[in-house]
Amino acid sequence: MEQVIIKHHERVDDLGIGGLRIIQNPSAFCFGMDAVLLSDYAKVQKHEKKVVDLGTGTGIIPILLSAKCMAEQIIGVEIQKDMSHMAKRSVQLNNLEQRLQILNQDLKQVVPSIGAGTADVVTSNPPYMNSRGGIENPTDTKAIARHEILCTLEDVIGSAAKLLKVKGRFVMVHRPTRLVDIIDTMRKYRLEPKRMRLVYPQIHKEPNMVLIEGSKQGKPFLKIDSPLIVYDELGKFTDEIYQIYNMERKEK
Amino acid sequence: MEQVIIKHHERVDDLGIGGLRIIQNPSAFCFGMDAVLLSDYAKVQKHEKKVVDLGTGTGIIPILLSAKCMAEQIIGVEIQKDMSHMAKRSVQLNNLEQRLQILNQDLKQVVPSIGAGTADVVTSNPPYMNSRGGIENPTDTKAIARHEILCTLEDVIGSAAKLLKVKGRFVMVHRPTRLVDIIDTMRKYRLEPKRMRLVYPQIHKEPNMVLIEGSKQGKPFLKIDSPLIVYDELGKFTDEIYQIYNMERKEK
Repeated sequence: MEQVIIKHHERVDDLGIGGLRIIQNPSAFCFGMDAVLLSDYAKVQKHEKKVVDLGTGTGIIPILLSAKCMAEQIIGVEIQKDMSHMAKRSVQLNNLEQRLQILNQDLKQVVPSIGAGTADVVTSNPPYMNSRGGIENPTDTKAIARHEILCTLEDVIGSAAKLLKVKGRFVMVHRPTRLVDIIDTMRKYRLEPKRMRLVYPQIHKEPNMVLIEGSKQGKPFLKIDSPLIVYDELGKFTDEIYQIYNMERKEK
Repeated sequence: MEQVIIKHHERVDDLGIGGLRIIQNPSAFCFGMDAVLLSDYAKVQKHEKKVVDLGTGTGIIPILLSAKCMAEQIIGVEIQKDMSHMAKRSVQLNNLEQRLQILNQDLKQVVPSIGAGTADVVTSNPPYMNSRGGIENPTDTKAIARHEILCTLEDVIGSAAKLLKVKGRFVMVHRPTRLVDIIDTMRKYRLEPKRMRLVYPQIHKEPNMVLIEGSKQGKPFLKIDSPLIVYDELGKFTDEIYQIYNMERKEK
């Protein structure tokens, strides 16, 4: 590894898997459980060689996927210059330059750079919130990561549909309140939803995340998985969350 | 109550609520948990005066709703003559003729009889299975109740949309595997999905029912409820199922 610059407002976190680390700026945006659950739910298979992550931010999903799958080429697309630069430095920090590439491009225009119909899997953890109203500073990094300022749900799904091979998989994490829009738009772009899982913070609570997979030109038949419960009734992580995070459960 | 005929192949079951009873033919079709969960999920409000149940079968949903809500007019629509006759006798058995009416009509053609734009709530527990293939006897009562032989999902949703007032509610129980078709078709007919609940047989199992509510011309925003778990890890009903069935929990 050559030298990698870490700026004074940044920190380096250990990801607890394969010795991987990530550079983050706590005042801008740090990855959350959604990214971890998505990289697990994607379950990239041996025969899937090319993976693209749209709106990759710090590069957390490609970096986690590098440890979880055998894909030869993993591409993260990020429109924000500073963020994509940070992601590139994380790639260097982990010596992943051979397999993992960060493109500082707009996901709406990235198809020619990557190639239409070439991806086996496209992942995305896009901004969740509708752009209309309530945003004080639309150039703010955090706001861009959370609100549909620079891309809409339809932009993400449209680009994914173009990038994927026939039968290629699109895997996304989003908010349950948007499920109707998600399903509607996926079908519009012929990414038939085939698999879905709701994430409930606790067993008696409403879900706060949905994991969903679509197959390009797939036939209609949706498999909904068992509920993913995050905390047990004592407020501790459930066994499944421990497994996904690759952590040991420490009793008391 | 006048005399009500019970045929020799029929039985009369106590519904455990408001002293209500229902006539069923065990060799044809008996109501299941789906009907009970739907009549609970519908939560018909005081101001909702007119309720229609499409494909009412034995009339189980209207009969349960008669005890659970204050609606002045509850109409069950059933295409099968014998079944609708049985439902009518259950209405008489419960002295519900003033509030509850059974129409022996095709739900696809029932709108003029009931009146377009007049219903506050439309419920349905329609046939779950696609009609294509595998049905040995399409005139069989059981097959008609389970397969889309005499009506499709789109027929049900289309008729519900016509029957409802603006902001009226459509509440249905169906199979999770059909969720994409359900959401797609509801939106097509402008019954925006607003509330949804998945029913999981056990916490580590896939859901086998989905309860969904749409609002006629409603705005997009879906609230997904906490998971409804049917059995606990010892194979006993959960507290919530006991509550819905209006039963006392008998410990050991």
